[in-house]
Amino acid sequence: MAKVLVLYKKPKNAEAFDKHYASVHIPLAKKIPGLKKYDISTGGVGAPTGPSEVHLVATLYFDSMEALQAGLASSEGKAAAGDLANFADGGAELYFFDTKDV
Amino acid sequence: MAKVLVLYKKPKNAEAFDKHYASVHIPLAKKIPGLKKYDISTGGVGAPTGPSEVHLVATLYFDSMEALQAGLASSEGKAAAGDLANFADGGAELYFFDTKDV
Repeated sequence: MAKVLVLYKKPKNAEAFDKHYASVHIPLAKKIPGLKKYDISTGGVGAPTGPSEVHLVATLYFDSMEALQAGLASSEGKAAAGDLANFADGGAELYFFDTKDV
Repeated sequence: MAKVLVLYKKPKNAEAFDKHYASVHIPLAKKIPGLKKYDISTGGVGAPTGPSEVHLVATLYFDSMEALQAGLASSEGKAAAGDLANFADGGAELYFFDTKDV
């Protein structure tokens, strides 16, 4: 499947981030056309040396890169992307790629 | 599911990286006890501004964080982790976390 992978770095206020993410961002993102599955990290995000600088990892799954690109280009996709500025004040890395099982 | 997420940054020699990854690293990683699914990016890894600095994204899935930790702590897990030094010369970010569907 094709994935949108989002690594949200530690925000200034984790409680406010989590509240906005759950109550505003998830409902917006779930409206993106072509979205097949959506999961987020729960609990801490670890690294080999201990806790990481990442607060939350989100993965949105689409059937293909074409569906992913169409979804992000839609008004719903733009609304979800535009919402990042409202809560992701620690920064966020976004990656887009297709995958295959190995 | 619990995930090991690996972001491999651009290596010095992409062809050599890809050859080692396919012929050595995947077989090693697939031996990790408790591994339920393993996918890798295919084609380029994009970012909002264009191509990203990431060469390959790998995700290894386990039933739980306990299974993930036991898998990484096993001799097979240590062998796979130890192999990174043999090919990931651009660096790699590793993250460990549980997930939930939203």
